[in-house]
Order: sequence, then C-alpha cells, then structure tokens
Amino acid sequence: MAAVSAEAKKAAIAGAIREIPDFPKKGIMFQDVSTLLLDPVAFQYAIDLLVERYRGMDVQCIAGFEARGFVFGPPVALALKVPFVMLRKPGKLPGETVGEEYITEYSTDRIEIHTGAVKPGQRVVLVDDLVATGGTLLAGANLVRKVGGVVVEAACVIELPSLHGRKKLGDLPLYTLIDIDVDE
Amino acid sequence: MAAVSAEAKKAAIAGAIREIPDFPKKGIMFQDVSTLLLDPVAFQYAIDLLVERYRGMDVQCIAGFEARGFVFGPPVALALKVPFVMLRKPGKLPGETVGEEYITEYSTDRIEIHTGAVKPGQRVVLVDDLVATGGTLLAGANLVRKVGGVVVEAACVIELPSLHGRKKLGDLPLYTLIDIDVDE
Repeated sequence: MAAVSAEAKKAAIAGAIREIPDFPKKGIMFQDVSTLLLDPVAFQYAIDLLVERYRGMDVQCIAGFEARGFVFGPPVALALKVPFVMLRKPGKLPGETVGEEYITEYSTDRIEIHTGAVKPGQRVVLVDDLVATGGTLLAGANLVRKVGGVVVEAACVIELPSLHGRKKLGDLPLYTLIDIDVDE
Repeated sequence: MAAVSAEAKKAAIAGAIREIPDFPKKGIMFQDVSTLLLDPVAFQYAIDLLVERYRGMDVQCIAGFEARGFVFGPPVALALKVPFVMLRKPGKLPGETVGEEYITEYSTDRIEIHTGAVKPGQRVVLVDDLVATGGTLLAGANLVRKVGGVVVEAACVIELPSLHGRKKLGDLPLYTLIDIDVDE
C-alpha cells in the first residue's frame, strides 16, 4: 500500500468536517468535528499527524481542553507514551486545583487543572480541536505555566485564520492541521 | 518481554485511581480517573482490555459520554477502526439532535446525540469511565435505541458494585475492568 501524503491526510480531514451556520449564535459558522470522529480513517490521520509532529520533540505531557480536547489529546498521549492531563471547566476536578479565567469568542470562562498533574519543568503540549480567537489556548498556557510546566506548543486540528488566534498567542508556537476560512 | 496478564493490568489500573472523599458532595467517595490518565502504561492497559473485549464482536460504533467517556472512547474506536459518537450535555451539539433525560447519583440531567450519527441497525458499545447507579448508561442506551442503533454492551473502567448499577441496566450487558467498594 502506498504511503498517504500529509496533504492527502489533511484533505481527508478537511472533507470530514461539517459547517453548521449560526451556532452557537447567529453569524457564527461553527466547524463541527463530530463528523470527523465518525470517519475512523480521517480521525486516525489527524492523530497520526499530531503524533508525527511531536515524536522527537521531547514532549513529556499532553494537556487537553474539556470537552473536545479530551477526544484528540488521549490518542496522542498514548501514542507518545506520556501522561494526559485534563484542563476542565470549574468545579469538575475533584482534587485540589489551580484556575485561570479567560474570554472566548462566545463567553467568559474559566479552566482548572489539578495541582500536581503537571510537574515543574515538564514539557507540555496543549491540544484542542480548534483555535478561533486563541483565548482558550492562551488561558491553558498560562495555567500550565502557573503550575511550573513548560509549554512547548499548542496543537489544534482546525485553525480559523481570519480570527487571528495565532497573533494573540504571541510567542507561544501554534501547530494546526487545516485552515478554514470563515469570512468573519 | 513476558506478556502482562489481564489481572496484572487490572491491578495497575486500580492502583492508578485516586479516591477523593466528599466530592461532589459530602458522603461521596469520588473515584478520580485523572491519575490513571497520568500513568501512560496503566491508561494503555485499560484501552487494551476494552479493545480485546470488543475485537471480534462486530462492534460498528463506540459512543462515549461527555466528558470522561470522551477520554476512553476514542482510543478504543480508533483501535477498532469504527466511528466515535459523542453523547453530549444539552446545547453542546451544533447539528440536529435527539435527547434523553435521566437521573444520576447527583442530579437530573439530559444527554443528546446528533441525528444521523448512529445508523439504523448499527451495533454500538457505550463507553464511560465509571458506572455508579447506572442512570447515565441507561439513558445512553435509550438514546442510541431511539435513533435506531443496537446497543451491544456498556463498558466502563470502574464499577461501584454497592450502587447496583448492573441491576438497573436490566438486560443491557455491562463490562467493567475493576470493582471498587465504596461502602455506601
């Protein structure tokens, strides 16, 4: 079987994502990854591209954002044989936590991490399905740094370049698999 | 390298789960899988045991419950090369949905599924981290059946036998990796 090129994998991923207009509110063209998860070949391509990116970069931990980051982060962490850390909504983690407030495209929110989940100096990659304005990723980076972790990079399946999330992240490197133009 | 027995894998999983007293409310001994996810060997054992269980059972879809079912379901679905379907909290899925109300150990809740995510006749395994009273799993089974799916079995990492979830599920088969006695 011929190897599938990265470009072909990305085309399969892009083709499996569905657009839903006016969700969660009027004027937003929502990028729905639920249909990507229904396509095991394209879903595996997304995981493989992320794993290929981070193999050899001495990544020691994957941190994923509730809830769709929980879908993409664990397969990457398992393939790299590193811990998976949950970044959760307020009040969901049962142990002692540290939190960070942030503003998303839709609302003001807060994420929390368990104290001790990331070790001081541990090299962490943040994983989510999509980067829009970058607020969630930036909050995750701040949170991981707050507990002493080193944020290597943020990784998402989808980037919406017109929302300039990459710019907002400043010196935090961002790796994404596909760009989608949402004309906002 | 000698093969690791299922019993040894289960002991590693049990050893990686942390108990947090009085969460989310007084008197509940919460079983925290976040520490299992920090142990890539034990986490992989849990996935392997689930994959071994379902390989050869003609499973055509894995459905996982928000949010911790999103951590365990996708690696199983990817290994089996079948779709992963998200069972989500109300208002989270952007497309057309069908819902089901249910009562948990802690509250009344509702889960939703995208119309068309499960095909009529498709053989589905439900995945979550833990079965307590069984309310969530039963709601998931009802929901999948409502959209025409066939529920093969429910699968969880942890079972709390003293809460009698297995009995509540009636004729829905339940597969769990470890039992934890919570004395309730």
